Amino acid sequence: MAGKYTCFDGRINRGRVSVERSCWHEECGVFGIFAPGQDVARLTYYGLYALQHRGQESAGIAVSNGQHISVHKGMGLVVEVFNYDNLQTLVGDLAIGHVRYSTSEDSSLVNAQPLVFRYLRGMVAIAHNGNLTNANKLRRQLGASGSVFQSSTDSEVIVNLIARYSQEPIELALRRCQEELQGAYSLVIMTEDKLIGVRDPYGVRPLCLGRMGEAWVLASESCALDTLEAEFVRDVEPGEIVVIDSKGVTSLQGHQAAHRAHCIFEYVYFARPDSTIDGETVNMVRRELGRNLAREYRYKGDVVIPVPDSGIAAAAGYAEVAGLPFEEGLMKNRYVGRTFIQPTQEMRNLGVRLKLNPIKQILKGKKVIIIDDSIVRGTTSRRIVGMLRQVGVEEIHLLVASPPILHPCYYGIDTSARGELIAAQYSLEDIRKHVDADSLHYLSLEGLFSSVKGEAENFCAACFTGHYPIPIPDPEEATKYSLA
Amino acid sequence: MAGKYTCFDGRINRGRVSVERSCWHEECGVFGIFAPGQDVARLTYYGLYALQHRGQESAGIAVSNGQHISVHKGMGLVVEVFNYDNLQTLVGDLAIGHVRYSTSEDSSLVNAQPLVFRYLRGMVAIAHNGNLTNANKLRRQLGASGSVFQSSTDSEVIVNLIARYSQEPIELALRRCQEELQGAYSLVIMTEDKLIGVRDPYGVRPLCLGRMGEAWVLASESCALDTLEAEFVRDVEPGEIVVIDSKGVTSLQGHQAAHRAHCIFEYVYFARPDSTIDGETVNMVRRELGRNLAREYRYKGDVVIPVPDSGIAAAAGYAEVAGLPFEEGLMKNRYVGRTFIQPTQEMRNLGVRLKLNPIKQILKGKKVIIIDDSIVRGTTSRRIVGMLRQVGVEEIHLLVASPPILHPCYYGIDTSARGELIAAQYSLEDIRKHVDADSLHYLSLEGLFSSVKGEAENFCAACFTGHYPIPIPDPEEATKYSLA
Amino acid sequence: MAGKYTCFDGRINRGRVSVERSCWHEECGVFGIFAPGQDVARLTYYGLYALQHRGQESAGIAVSNGQHISVHKGMGLVVEVFNYDNLQTLVGDLAIGHVRYSTSEDSSLVNAQPLVFRYLRGMVAIAHNGNLTNANKLRRQLGASGSVFQSSTDSEVIVNLIARYSQEPIELALRRCQEELQGAYSLVIMTEDKLIGVRDPYGVRPLCLGRMGEAWVLASESCALDTLEAEFVRDVEPGEIVVIDSKGVTSLQGHQAAHRAHCIFEYVYFARPDSTIDGETVNMVRRELGRNLAREYRYKGDVVIPVPDSGIAAAAGYAEVAGLPFEEGLMKNRYVGRTFIQPTQEMRNLGVRLKLNPIKQILKGKKVIIIDDSIVRGTTSRRIVGMLRQVGVEEIHLLVASPPILHPCYYGIDTSARGELIAAQYSLEDIRKHVDADSLHYLSLEGLFSSVKGEAENFCAACFTGHYPIPIPDPEEATKYSLA
Amino acid sequence: MAGKYTCFDGRINRGRVSVERSCWHEECGVFGIFAPGQDVARLTYYGLYALQHRGQESAGIAVSNGQHISVHKGMGLVVEVFNYDNLQTLVGDLAIGHVRYSTSEDSSLVNAQPLVFRYLRGMVAIAHNGNLTNANKLRRQLGASGSVFQSSTDSEVIVNLIARYSQEPIELALRRCQEELQGAYSLVIMTEDKLIGVRDPYGVRPLCLGRMGEAWVLASESCALDTLEAEFVRDVEPGEIVVIDSKGVTSLQGHQAAHRAHCIFEYVYFARPDSTIDGETVNMVRRELGRNLAREYRYKGDVVIPVPDSGIAAAAGYAEVAGLPFEEGLMKNRYVGRTFIQPTQEMRNLGVRLKLNPIKQILKGKKVIIIDDSIVRGTTSRRIVGMLRQVGVEEIHLLVASPPILHPCYYGIDTSARGELIAAQYSLEDIRKHVDADSLHYLSLEGLFSSVKGEAENFCAACFTGHYPIPIPDPEEATKYSLA
Repeated sequence: MAGKYTCFDGRINRGRVSVERSCWHEECGVFGIFAPGQDVARLTYYGLYALQHRGQESAGIAVSNGQHISVHKGMGLVVEVFNYDNLQTLVGDLAIGHVRYSTSEDSSLVNAQPLVFRYLRGMVAIAHNGNLTNANKLRRQLGASGSVFQSSTDSEVIVNLIARYSQEPIELALRRCQEELQGAYSLVIMTEDKLIGVRDPYGVRPLCLGRMGEAWVLASESCALDTLEAEFVRDVEPGEIVVIDSKGVTSLQGHQAAHRAHCIFEYVYFARPDSTIDGETVNMVRRELGRNLAREYRYKGDVVIPVPDSGIAAAAGYAEVAGLPFEEGLMKNRYVGRTFIQPTQEMRNLGVRLKLNPIKQILKGKKVIIIDDSIVRGTTSRRIVGMLRQVGVEEIHLLVASPPILHPCYYGIDTSARGELIAAQYSLEDIRKHVDADSLHYLSLEGLFSSVKGEAENFCAACFTGHYPIPIPDPEEATKYSLA
Repeated sequence: MAGKYTCFDGRINRGRVSVERSCWHEECGVFGIFAPGQDVARLTYYGLYALQHRGQESAGIAVSNGQHISVHKGMGLVVEVFNYDNLQTLVGDLAIGHVRYSTSEDSSLVNAQPLVFRYLRGMVAIAHNGNLTNANKLRRQLGASGSVFQSSTDSEVIVNLIARYSQEPIELALRRCQEELQGAYSLVIMTEDKLIGVRDPYGVRPLCLGRMGEAWVLASESCALDTLEAEFVRDVEPGEIVVIDSKGVTSLQGHQAAHRAHCIFEYVYFARPDSTIDGETVNMVRRELGRNLAREYRYKGDVVIPVPDSGIAAAAGYAEVAGLPFEEGLMKNRYVGRTFIQPTQEMRNLGVRLKLNPIKQILKGKKVIIIDDSIVRGTTSRRIVGMLRQVGVEEIHLLVASPPILHPCYYGIDTSARGELIAAQYSLEDIRKHVDADSLHYLSLEGLFSSVKGEAENFCAACFTGHYPIPIPDPEEATKYSLA
Repeated sequence: MAGKYTCFDGRINRGRVSVERSCWHEECGVFGIFAPGQDVARLTYYGLYALQHRGQESAGIAVSNGQHISVHKGMGLVVEVFNYDNLQTLVGDLAIGHVRYSTSEDSSLVNAQPLVFRYLRGMVAIAHNGNLTNANKLRRQLGASGSVFQSSTDSEVIVNLIARYSQEPIELALRRCQEELQGAYSLVIMTEDKLIGVRDPYGVRPLCLGRMGEAWVLASESCALDTLEAEFVRDVEPGEIVVIDSKGVTSLQGHQAAHRAHCIFEYVYFARPDSTIDGETVNMVRRELGRNLAREYRYKGDVVIPVPDSGIAAAAGYAEVAGLPFEEGLMKNRYVGRTFIQPTQEMRNLGVRLKLNPIKQILKGKKVIIIDDSIVRGTTSRRIVGMLRQVGVEEIHLLVASPPILHPCYYGIDTSARGELIAAQYSLEDIRKHVDADSLHYLSLEGLFSSVKGEAENFCAACFTGHYPIPIPDPEEATKYSLA
Repeated sequence: MAGKYTCFDGRINRGRVSVERSCWHEECGVFGIFAPGQDVARLTYYGLYALQHRGQESAGIAVSNGQHISVHKGMGLVVEVFNYDNLQTLVGDLAIGHVRYSTSEDSSLVNAQPLVFRYLRGMVAIAHNGNLTNANKLRRQLGASGSVFQSSTDSEVIVNLIARYSQEPIELALRRCQEELQGAYSLVIMTEDKLIGVRDPYGVRPLCLGRMGEAWVLASESCALDTLEAEFVRDVEPGEIVVIDSKGVTSLQGHQAAHRAHCIFEYVYFARPDSTIDGETVNMVRRELGRNLAREYRYKGDVVIPVPDSGIAAAAGYAEVAGLPFEEGLMKNRYVGRTFIQPTQEMRNLGVRLKLNPIKQILKGKKVIIIDDSIVRGTTSRRIVGMLRQVGVEEIHLLVASPPILHPCYYGIDTSARGELIAAQYSLEDIRKHVDADSLHYLSLEGLFSSVKGEAENFCAACFTGHYPIPIPDPEEATKYSLA
């Protein structure tokens, strides 16, 4: 999928630019650190910075000094939300942080995380990655007994549920919550003196534990540990509740499902290539996806080029197996920013190529094999093929390093509705014609699953297979509360 | 009291400037409008702008289009928080607004109002002026049954209390709430299609109702009605619940106390001179305070000067009765702003006169009678007297147009703690020596009460008398929740 | 004139609000300080803050550390342009500062002052108050010999002229410049180690010298000296060049005109009431204007009210002579800001009263004498009279504490063109009808001149009399260069 | 050289972060367009956006509507400086734009370009890329005859020189200027109705001409033409003056040197890979540099990895010739921004890896060949080698795809002074020890020159060879004027 770069500008709507949602959006990244005596806010800042790809809409850090939790959050990138002044006001021994992306309707500071609240037992901060499938049902139940909601986030549902079990210590309250929460969630929670990590029974969204001398770290991906030179200890287990305080790390095994359901799309597109998640290194999975693609579809091309950046590893893997030269045939502008001013329709006709530029001298007259990680709506693919034709490419073979996306995700990935998924609506040949490639092929499901070391049954690949491991929401429940 | 101008810069703490709290702060101003088909957000903007003197820390406007409530709020003055772009996103038929001041510890966006929430019956927005005296007790009770709190505002307490009565329509739920809420409150509340005004049983804080053609307006002070050329209809009664919707205005008389307790300090200092509150025009009360002061203490001065701006009316009244010339002897810089950079200690010694400047040519060699509205800590009075001495004033007679402030306020005015009230600690002669005036006199209680048309028993003058009409908080309860 | 408050919002055009120029704008305020070892930037900040009324469009401070001149300037009020961070970067022994207002066409950062430049003899910073009448002629002459211009300011003309005399020390170069410059100018100039004040041969714009211990200060008005508790030493003489360096103060008498021509409008409207300029205290002049008005036109009114703030002193003086009560019958909103959102035309019809509010309870059924300082276009007067009628005033007598304005100013005051001056177009009776007052009277020229201590011939009153002491620009030259 | 990413954060000094200058900075990018009837400001915005890599400190666009030139410029990236509002104020038929980087001492808005000025013949805007070697000499000469300087830019020198020839049309004045200007310059100049491109006699800095239907475009690099889908027409010739107006394109051949001296470092590091400059495609040159490196130094490595992003093409070329797998072994954080908060010294010791992260699973136990484009100070190389060691790389062979940098640049590239160039101070073996690699090799000069198609004598490679084609400044002249 060629998408990440288009996501970026899609979000600069500000009422003037229509949102172009041709790509998937990971909802969130979470981070937590227990490090008395250290500058936990700044360490969290670096951790979030490493997780920025998981959410660029808002960022927040909450810090506890043992008595009180302070928080700062705002709209924008981590480097935009935080500065020397506001980081210095966040002093404490433990901290959690959050980066978020969401659909435009919920795009509001009121939904930014961490959410900090006070309940009967004291103060708590919570950061959530994932998506509950029974959030509205829970909201209704909680509302019936007097809960009020100030946002449309799942976090606020979880918070109110925790408060219902305020007679129990928070760890046990969380175990109770696990029984009621349905869906995908990786939580990082902080009380005045404890850092807690929780993962849903299937382990859909990633969460790992690291060590930094005396300090402990929780993070969505291991790249955040690397950034701090923290040692990777292990992934948090599906259903596990990890509690970190001055006495060290203790683990409660909460509800665990019969099998795991790690999101395979994290490897295909979302996660950072340098992360290792649940035993699989993302870059290596992607390279293997490319190799498997080469084993399935081999062309007598002159050159293999990736759609940058997410297609690079697969393209290199393809080139390796196919014995063809790998070239950066499409150059990406490194300064694409969130506030980019969109071309007018008139200029679009002029064909403004703002984000990607094909290098004519490399590509002209060549048979080009172009590797993308996935295709959602096909819009970007069509544009890229058009650009290649314009510079005189002779043959264009578009190969996709994952199977067709046929089903929407309900577990925390903001993809298109089913009606917008091109592969759910059209035949392979129709899609090929639409994007105007000389040939088009997707990786097979076998090719996908053979690219990872784990068993297929331990992954959620519902977007490709339609096999949903966790019940999905009743359509009537599906409309979210919005307080944006 | 010479205070308002020092409050202004006191708030620029940003971690660098120590807050100088030598003056009282009114907590809030509230506004609401029901005007289908009109630009309710902009009308609310103008209403808040007229109430800006009641709170300069944060401002917010919530608008309902009949189905959904949208809100925008931010830190700063109304003109800083709102601009063309964000006002245009607030489209609807009814709106409420809020301006807020608070103590620095709670100075945070999370505490800005209106508070918008969703409960079982739908969406609600609330704006509050006043102070509950049993907020912490209620917070504890609500927390015990599962409520969570995200701010330290009274509004969130009220909101959670409303949600406990979600089986009843909101008007009736509010009547129930009135039975549990203790303290001073004037509320403006909005559901998707109703605008509601509520006043506490004693009517401590002001709230009035106005009409603008087909539209209805609620506001803390009548000056906000004047700004919109709305017609003043009447004050909301103590304990009354006024409901405005497409069917018109209906009134529920909730709990009403045996007598009224209108805050007399609104007239002495807080309210805008051009407002008429509960039957008394502020400017006329102040002028009468000055006249009564002249009847009590007459000096053979050469000139009467006010401490601007709040002392102007009283000084003019004094001059009128005393038959002495009124002069603007102290010039106030009209550009005092919130972000003013404080002089260093070294410069303070140089005597930087940034906000007030005595006009030497008018004052030199004269016997000056200077009129202030009140004295809290005495710091400002001492500085002003010092400035007058420096330009060669011969005699300085400081007259205060209200009695000594001896007791703290628990009903929504952020005055000093008792230990900081100079009149609670020192004798009149000691204060005179401290401020270095040739003579010092306060208006008597009789003089105060005879300046208003209403009966003394219908005013809260607890700061002067110590007679609190509503139970004040248990000291152990007094520490507020803070989530700033 | 009722104007100052309308100017404020007139400037928020930003392409959306039409500029409402119903009032005069003083072009600039200048300040300079020579104080080795002290925080000259912060002292200049306070000085400019006291001169803020002379220009609210841009502000700037330049500082020299003996070797190098640094500058910071920006659009907006002094408190908006400067903060702790940027003030701290301005370290040195001497400094100059500037506040500026200008017509919208020139409203650009490129025109902000001080202007810092390097010429053959080193670095120089310059701040200018006034208006050259031969600027375009000089620009053309200088351009013919190779000068380039990056702004449309007079300062850049002066700078290029100075550079033409770079073979001479700057003091002597300035004397040469005085021979070529025509118009009104008060300059504060700084080299790496000298502070220089220059006044035009007629002394049209004010400039005074003060002392602060070892330090020396130059300022447009004495109120800036008072703010720093600097001692007023004397006004800079017409045509004088004052040079301040480590050896002290030396004076060069440059070209001096046959008589002085101090701008009388500074006293009527522009200057701060607490300033004393060329021997006259502004507040006392204004009070005397009011007294003289009472001597010329006496009504059997019930109450005298000012148009705030500039009419207050005259109204008090009128009330004193007439023996009538002085009342603040019109309340001004103290929070009028530059970014205020204008009412839509529809709302204007609703009669939004955003800046001034008449106090009905004081005015209803009364015969009101209302005092304004001057009338330019009559628009504001008409609105005020309309508001008074609306609250039921019985008779409205509008008295103006200065004569009719019949002629435009070319010496640094941005008034309307002649065609917009109501008194230049219509008879007294027509104006009275237009503003809808029961009676209207202006102070006579005799009344004006008898309000000041100096001889009439030593003032420029060209706006009233049409007698221009300095040649005015050739109409063909009048179009300004604009580089905004 | 691993540099670009470190440059980025080096610029967030703001007085708190010391600037880390371990990399070279291209001074500027220029752009111009003549397109009556089109939105020239927005087209320039896109052009500058494509040239952003040439300067991230400030950006500016000037537009002419035939009568008047308007300009907007500011500090920061193109997407930060421009928004819908300010772009819409820039309406016209022709435009020029500029992006700039500079050393911190000159980092000030006063130095931002385009510079707009008015001289005898009208208005002119100018944008400059390069560096004059006789700027100070010219400044002194011009100053002696009355020129004043408000910035420390070369552009202001050129502007004043143009004005000396104001008796001639600007094209001829520019030819005169070419005779006096010494150094490297590519200029884009605009009068009210003409767009002009000028290149120095040696053609050191790039400049090319493109066509877009009826419109004409000038740009530093062809990637800016591609972005607008403009057709590349030709490079502007060394010494050429190209004039574009409503009559079309005319060319004046000004002074041309005996040979060309195209900066070879544009190909090695600065220019965008997808640009073709003076007949050489940057990506292809870089790939060939990598191939030649493989021909000179072959290791039995397991894997070839680039230092991203500038080393990618060379690494791919090396891998191709060496028959080794190419891997993205170092992952770069794509969100590195200008306002990034630097780690404290204490954290640096913890080894925070914020911008680059080695993928342990790919690299551990391997013999790694790592390709960088160049080495300036060696600091970054040392850190990268350290990171590789930490993840367990067995052997590290650092190969540099260009020769050792031994001499500073005086033609517009802000590299270190000679004392900071590691290769100018130490032997190859000492550098190898310093960076702690197992082996270190630079490409030979022969390898460098054989990577381009042109003759060696037509390139400036002074930084490698010390052979300066244009006289360099007298050391005594070298101190720049600074007005920042």
